[in-house]
Amino acid sequence: MQQLLTQQTQGSSKGSCILLPYLLLFFKSDNCTEGQSSMADPGHPVKCSPVMVDGVALNGPTVNILDSEDFLQQSMAIILEDAVKKATDVKEKVCEWRPPEELKELLDLELRDEGESESQILQRCRDAIRYSVKTTHPRFFNQLFAGLEPYSLVASCIVEALKPSAYTYEVGPVFTLVEDAVLRKMMELVGWEEGGDGIFNAGGSMSNMYAVNLARYHHCPDIKQLGLSAAPRLVLFTSQECHYSISKAAAFLGIGTKNVYKVPSDESGKMIPSALEELIKKAKSEGAVPFMVNATAGTTVLGAFDPLEEIADICGEHNLWLHVDACWGGAALISKKHKHLLKGIHRANSVAWNPHKMMMACLQCSAFLVRDKTGLLQRCYSASASYLFQQDKFYDISFDTGDKSIQCGRKPDAFKFWLLWKAVGARQLEQRVDRALAMARYLADEIKKREGFRLLMEPEYANVCFWYIPPSLRQLEDGPELWSKLHTVAPVIKERMMKVGSMMVGYQPHSDRANFFRMIVISPQAGKADMDFVLDEIHNLGKDL
Amino acid sequence: MQQLLTQQTQGSSKGSCILLPYLLLFFKSDNCTEGQSSMADPGHPVKCSPVMVDGVALNGPTVNILDSEDFLQQSMAIILEDAVKKATDVKEKVCEWRPPEELKELLDLELRDEGESESQILQRCRDAIRYSVKTTHPRFFNQLFAGLEPYSLVASCIVEALKPSAYTYEVGPVFTLVEDAVLRKMMELVGWEEGGDGIFNAGGSMSNMYAVNLARYHHCPDIKQLGLSAAPRLVLFTSQECHYSISKAAAFLGIGTKNVYKVPSDESGKMIPSALEELIKKAKSEGAVPFMVNATAGTTVLGAFDPLEEIADICGEHNLWLHVDACWGGAALISKKHKHLLKGIHRANSVAWNPHKMMMACLQCSAFLVRDKTGLLQRCYSASASYLFQQDKFYDISFDTGDKSIQCGRKPDAFKFWLLWKAVGARQLEQRVDRALAMARYLADEIKKREGFRLLMEPEYANVCFWYIPPSLRQLEDGPELWSKLHTVAPVIKERMMKVGSMMVGYQPHSDRANFFRMIVISPQAGKADMDFVLDEIHNLGKDL
Repeated sequence: MQQLLTQQTQGSSKGSCILLPYLLLFFKSDNCTEGQSSMADPGHPVKCSPVMVDGVALNGPTVNILDSEDFLQQSMAIILEDAVKKATDVKEKVCEWRPPEELKELLDLELRDEGESESQILQRCRDAIRYSVKTTHPRFFNQLFAGLEPYSLVASCIVEALKPSAYTYEVGPVFTLVEDAVLRKMMELVGWEEGGDGIFNAGGSMSNMYAVNLARYHHCPDIKQLGLSAAPRLVLFTSQECHYSISKAAAFLGIGTKNVYKVPSDESGKMIPSALEELIKKAKSEGAVPFMVNATAGTTVLGAFDPLEEIADICGEHNLWLHVDACWGGAALISKKHKHLLKGIHRANSVAWNPHKMMMACLQCSAFLVRDKTGLLQRCYSASASYLFQQDKFYDISFDTGDKSIQCGRKPDAFKFWLLWKAVGARQLEQRVDRALAMARYLADEIKKREGFRLLMEPEYANVCFWYIPPSLRQLEDGPELWSKLHTVAPVIKERMMKVGSMMVGYQPHSDRANFFRMIVISPQAGKADMDFVLDEIHNLGKDL
Repeated sequence: MQQLLTQQTQGSSKGSCILLPYLLLFFKSDNCTEGQSSMADPGHPVKCSPVMVDGVALNGPTVNILDSEDFLQQSMAIILEDAVKKATDVKEKVCEWRPPEELKELLDLELRDEGESESQILQRCRDAIRYSVKTTHPRFFNQLFAGLEPYSLVASCIVEALKPSAYTYEVGPVFTLVEDAVLRKMMELVGWEEGGDGIFNAGGSMSNMYAVNLARYHHCPDIKQLGLSAAPRLVLFTSQECHYSISKAAAFLGIGTKNVYKVPSDESGKMIPSALEELIKKAKSEGAVPFMVNATAGTTVLGAFDPLEEIADICGEHNLWLHVDACWGGAALISKKHKHLLKGIHRANSVAWNPHKMMMACLQCSAFLVRDKTGLLQRCYSASASYLFQQDKFYDISFDTGDKSIQCGRKPDAFKFWLLWKAVGARQLEQRVDRALAMARYLADEIKKREGFRLLMEPEYANVCFWYIPPSLRQLEDGPELWSKLHTVAPVIKERMMKVGSMMVGYQPHSDRANFFRMIVISPQAGKADMDFVLDEIHNLGKDL
């Protein structure tokens, strides 16, 4: 009837008298002030009594997106100007440092009863951008991500506007298919020619947790139902250089951090296979049950790659699940020149790989890949919620991937990588990786040439670790006094660089090594002048120490 | 020296002869073709040999964001037009249904070696939007989220452009402070006048998992290190109506799904406290160790609220951690009229609450709140990664909140709620909640009036559950034949509504009930005409069945 009504009124003139016969019907369906399906001339809104329930008028929408069009236009202009162009401009600061208490005041954080005007909100947007760290700045070298990929940014904003969730094809048709395509391509690069399975997660730590849980389920599916209280002591192995998410996983999953056996690494940060073998034997002799090995392809601090072939041999002998945490190092798989770093990765049972790191997809974009093709992932994770994964749907429900996840709603992160890849192609992604590693090489060579700089080790990947020794310490002999004094240098230089805002480079202590800088080279927005700048600037900031 | 050089060249004329002395220096520092810190006249780029490492030229950036400005402008225009205005226009379709195999072809998913032109990428953006479900459409009633909040969208896009991570104040100064402010406000609404602790996570399932793990840690901190293999059988309690993430948590955390004791609910979906008490006793008599109760405030299907006061009493008696999954129902806390639904929530030890549901923050925005103020959350989750959480930082490291998380990188989701709240204020948020519940009330009353519609139960919240009985079945007596035939009706109507694209309403079976529709009423973009439309349309689509 509503359709009929619309047709009838379309031809009518705008006078309220002529509308009268329809208005009677109109009242009946209580549509009179509904803007959205208005059948009357919008210039002459029809007045009628509001439909009230519990004291609330229900006629019409109370929020119309079109009213926000100006605001959206203006805020998008601010984002492009301040958060994209200015944030990535090398002539601007990387950060506008304020101490927490001062920044709290500046931001006026309090949430109040009354809202603010649009112009106030626009100013809040400008302020939030201004006082944020510009991780997309060419001189941000602080984390394992950097730079801005405009294509990925656009994909992100599409996702934010559409508010999809990747659990079912029904709600996320485009994004579930895109995820599948990206996973397949990544598995091809891993070398699983027959494909496999996988899922995108909220970050690499989550992907590593998925691996530990899946390996455990593979080892003993009953644990899913029965829990660990009746199980033997399960033990997993990882190198001392691994990411801390492996310990977090063990704590979270009820395995216990003490059951993470840390395998010694050599001085370049690589797991020592013979030490792994020994630890496995030790665990067995203790009556514990080994079930997996985590190998790291690209460690967080040193950028080291564990020897995957040898580790895979050991896993094969002892029937252990091999997971490769390639969150950081996975990018090398796209490079003919550097993929040798991950030689043997095709033998892994599972792989974690974050395209939001060197592939530069927007945050977060993290894939968990599984070689199994028998549905292990689904069996391990499924809870079969009947309100979401109905079995009597009218399409092939194998496209409903949400039951492989520990999340319910899940962001379609793969799209951010897919659109980027479509735009630049595999060859350019490869060139970027090659260039990042060449840049790291250049930086390391430069460090070796410069007085007062000392390379921690030759970089294998894009992590360049080094000390800066201020002139006052250069005469000291290599010994405890030097190292204890040196330990205090990096934090001060870091403080100064933050306050100046000229660049950001991380530092940390590491096992028995005093605080050193770890510079991460990723973004094609940076050139060798930026490498030179970093070394000049560290010297400028620290020469008086 | 670089600074000096800049000063020297600033005063020079543009002739290459005059530049020569500087060029010699210039070559030395290999800056000659670096666009970013160019010291020569940009109109006359100085030619010099590229600095090559491993066959890669390192001079200058290879990607300049300014080159993408046009593309960004154009794609933002497409997003505003197609993904915002058109997507939320009631006259447009909610979805443009294509079966998976056909959509795969349309999208051309393959990832190739070569990139595509910007115009092709813009077309891909249009296509991705076109074939996506418009969850922000006024007639999308399919999930526990709906509608579009322009302010939250802007906040999301700021986050996407800036690429922050919320682990440290150093990298996310604005966003760590904002998270703290939002958590405090939410805790105030929960009724924890003394504050507490908390963290934003990637969705409500994750927040519920945090709760189970934290309750376990509180019960026995040694499990973090030692694991569960030596622990007694731990048991938790939740109602049969709870979200499936509780079972997922038990599986993932090594507790086991069988150790989730499902407490019967009454016919309105509320946990029966006496049944909880009995189950606790039963578990103890079996030698198991109860450690927590999960109460649900707003169940997924029926929208029921467990009786928190009575459950809190029982938890008190048995010394059990009380977690309230208020992911969906938490919004009522902002309403003076409806907060009674959660009476007693202040007695909970932890609460999960998703502002991305009825508060309409963009996806995802999920808070996990903890009443403890002694640092339990941090102790439970910390792994103290030395490369991230350095102890010798120059600011108060209590602002580095990342060690409370199981993630490493973490999106600053609180900002999406904060900016929205700043813009509309608590009073408008309250009015929206009141209106959504009044709208659900209206819909339920309308269902009771209409022939062929049957309400499953009176709604307590914004879930309206009902059957549509086609004319052909209306003469059947209430019995197995009717219900088995009715079971097949909703899936067919769902298929038809997807193919027409007029609206989206979910359906599911539920315990022994045949498939019924579950309509979720949230967005202020919908009015009562949309409620009427849904009922008319279901009849139109199903009357021939």
